[in-house]
Amino acid sequence: MENKPKRRTRERIIETSLRLFNDFGEPNVTTAFIADEMNISPGNLYYHFHKKDEIVDAIFTAFRRELNAVLTMPGGRAHVEDVWLFLHLLFEQVWKYRFIYRDLNDLLTRNRQVEIGFKQIVAQQVRTTASLCEGLVQTGAMLARPSEVRALAINMSLITTYWLSYEYTRDPRGNHYAARLGRGVYQSMSLLAPYLLGDSRVLLERLSEEYIDQ
Amino acid sequence: MENKPKRRTRERIIETSLRLFNDFGEPNVTTAFIADEMNISPGNLYYHFHKKDEIVDAIFTAFRRELNAVLTMPGGRAHVEDVWLFLHLLFEQVWKYRFIYRDLNDLLTRNRQVEIGFKQIVAQQVRTTASLCEGLVQTGAMLARPSEVRALAINMSLITTYWLSYEYTRDPRGNHYAARLGRGVYQSMSLLAPYLLGDSRVLLERLSEEYIDQ
Repeated sequence: MENKPKRRTRERIIETSLRLFNDFGEPNVTTAFIADEMNISPGNLYYHFHKKDEIVDAIFTAFRRELNAVLTMPGGRAHVEDVWLFLHLLFEQVWKYRFIYRDLNDLLTRNRQVEIGFKQIVAQQVRTTASLCEGLVQTGAMLARPSEVRALAINMSLITTYWLSYEYTRDPRGNHYAARLGRGVYQSMSLLAPYLLGDSRVLLERLSEEYIDQ
Repeated sequence: MENKPKRRTRERIIETSLRLFNDFGEPNVTTAFIADEMNISPGNLYYHFHKKDEIVDAIFTAFRRELNAVLTMPGGRAHVEDVWLFLHLLFEQVWKYRFIYRDLNDLLTRNRQVEIGFKQIVAQQVRTTASLCEGLVQTGAMLARPSEVRALAINMSLITTYWLSYEYTRDPRGNHYAARLGRGVYQSMSLLAPYLLGDSRVLLERLSEEYIDQ
């Protein structure tokens, strides 16, 4: 019981930091800024985290755990809706932890844990996407050779990783984040479309309709 | 005649800065570093550029001019080799000015000229790619609806823009740049593949063979 307030403060520091990193960019947020935002003393924050990189590491650990839950899909037969759901869950994580994706190259250079961890995340994402595609081939929803599935999985992982950055270059001062994420799902699904057969292709077109004019 | 040495120094500053920005990242290169690398005094450099942002602007202007030459393709009928050449020329520019692509979000936030200019570059690149695809449809090399061409052009522009960053997340300490660029061309072309017909598809597969196992 005694430790409870301390644990709560630690969790609140992580939550507040994630929000500030997302809003202002991680390089622009200091530990003093975080303590000030929480109305706690810098000494209290220091008790939990000795430097900002330790907060980044704690957030990155949570990010990996949540993303791994999305990336650990059961193998075997798959339908178009499974890919659709997978991409939605993936983009939810990208959005929740968007500061990691926005400042990725910079974080990779400065933080060893991110460097090693992100490489594994990308590899796992390519494998999971390829295995979903193979599941579509198994159910007869898709026709694609192994080399095509491999190139497709790499392109889909690239698009989910950089979609928010790309939208940002196209409209640096825009908002409409929900629409942006929706377009990301649509652009990823559009890679799959030409390999789908019959009913699956019709279903994808129906699912995509709401995004096309956004 | 009198102005020649001054003009030469200005050009040498731009060349040296581009090389140092590419090697060390623009945020890590100061004007003092550039002057030192060139064996000129900081005062001499200051005579040509009052601050680093002016050098970035000069490089960005050259980048836009060169890229625009690639993006201004004649419209009309097109063949698979035209897309192949277009992507090679595009990736050459991405490689030559790689510091812009690597630190893109950061540069967009700090530099107004890059913010406005890059947005136009992306829009132009999507238009040129879409018009190349329409040219393929005209010659009967490709079968795709307008909405498919649009989604394809966006995805191809995203992949060329972030390919180097993506390769960097997959292998931050690797080299083999020529192979990396080749894979970028291959991944972009693979988006087109399922829409190609007959001989064009066979030609693409032949052109792609050398990249698949890299």
